[in-house]
Amino acid sequence: MDLNEALYTTRAMRRVKPDPIPEEAVKAMLDAAVRAPSGGNNQNWRFVTVTDPALKAALGDLYRDAWKILQNTVYKKAYERAEAVGDTQTMRIRSSSEWLAENFEVVPLWVFFFSRNDPTGASIFPGVWNMMLSARGLGIGTCLTTIAGFFKSDEVFEVLGVPTDKGWVNNAAISAGYPLGRWGTAKRRPANEVVFSERWGNRPDWTVDEPLWLEPENYGRS
Amino acid sequence: MDLNEALYTTRAMRRVKPDPIPEEAVKAMLDAAVRAPSGGNNQNWRFVTVTDPALKAALGDLYRDAWKILQNTVYKKAYERAEAVGDTQTMRIRSSSEWLAENFEVVPLWVFFFSRNDPTGASIFPGVWNMMLSARGLGIGTCLTTIAGFFKSDEVFEVLGVPTDKGWVNNAAISAGYPLGRWGTAKRRPANEVVFSERWGNRPDWTVDEPLWLEPENYGRS
Repeated sequence: MDLNEALYTTRAMRRVKPDPIPEEAVKAMLDAAVRAPSGGNNQNWRFVTVTDPALKAALGDLYRDAWKILQNTVYKKAYERAEAVGDTQTMRIRSSSEWLAENFEVVPLWVFFFSRNDPTGASIFPGVWNMMLSARGLGIGTCLTTIAGFFKSDEVFEVLGVPTDKGWVNNAAISAGYPLGRWGTAKRRPANEVVFSERWGNRPDWTVDEPLWLEPENYGRS
Repeated sequence: MDLNEALYTTRAMRRVKPDPIPEEAVKAMLDAAVRAPSGGNNQNWRFVTVTDPALKAALGDLYRDAWKILQNTVYKKAYERAEAVGDTQTMRIRSSSEWLAENFEVVPLWVFFFSRNDPTGASIFPGVWNMMLSARGLGIGTCLTTIAGFFKSDEVFEVLGVPTDKGWVNNAAISAGYPLGRWGTAKRRPANEVVFSERWGNRPDWTVDEPLWLEPENYGRS
């Protein structure tokens, strides 16, 4: 796959089929993950792949608890406002994230990422994202989630048997499966609206009116 | 460029030429950055591009101060040990990171990434890494640095005129320029040594003895 196609069309793909992911694909995704840089090349990371139904059921309950906390706190006002003003894009995100919570066990593969000595996330997330881009190249949809590790960390450690005295942190859990939906370029705020030239507040001379990488049949979907 | 070539060969490229980066390339790199997902699709990010010599000189002084702090604290023991045991890989990283500090102003483009409401880094670093992968596709070398924002945050905000009362955090500063060295696959610990199957401590059934993506003329460099 072309690099730009992957960069432009790797978006949250939450709704997936239950079909298992072949071992060769799992290896390729994780081999891509370890290619990413980390501070001082420390590679202070571990990745736990989860496919076992009993483990998925236990983690799914934690994920759903975390999801409910998120809905009732961080996202509460945003979703109320979206519903009030008819913001369909936000409501679609809510709906697909609800699907992922309700169907946690349907997702054939979850990969839990752990790191240590990485207070900013700069060392773990390039590897996480490499895995997700590699998956895209293999036609596998992924979604980056952080809520179980954020709201239910102790319980996640217990279920997966992670030592609690070695400094490990659960940074993310990535869902992976063959998508039910179609690939496409996600709608984003144009780059020129979030870039400043030289100093904060100075708009650049250029604009980006549509994604610079275009595949005609994909463009326009969101 | 092929996706896997980018995933496997985008490594820290600190030593670069002073040649400026064309505006079209800057736009392409930043347009790729905004394609990455962020929590709730919030896109709570701003990117400041810096090419101005006076700004680079001010930021370079901060970067060198931060680099010295890092050498005398976090990395002190690791470098002493590397020197004692003749660990040339670690000493090469030290040497090239020293080059970057000393030649901060030679680097034609720095991009400072800011985000807010992103305590884990999960929302900003996929975008950072997208920019670095897009740069790789354009033959531009980058390096992800966090030290100025980590050790000299207040001063970075002052130099770039970033408001201090809006919740922004400086997550990273990315150097970008045409490389002096050659591209290649970085040496990493094999994926099977950092992956656990189902539960912490269970090694997977598979091994990865060499990078799964190979370009013969690149393989083996580190």
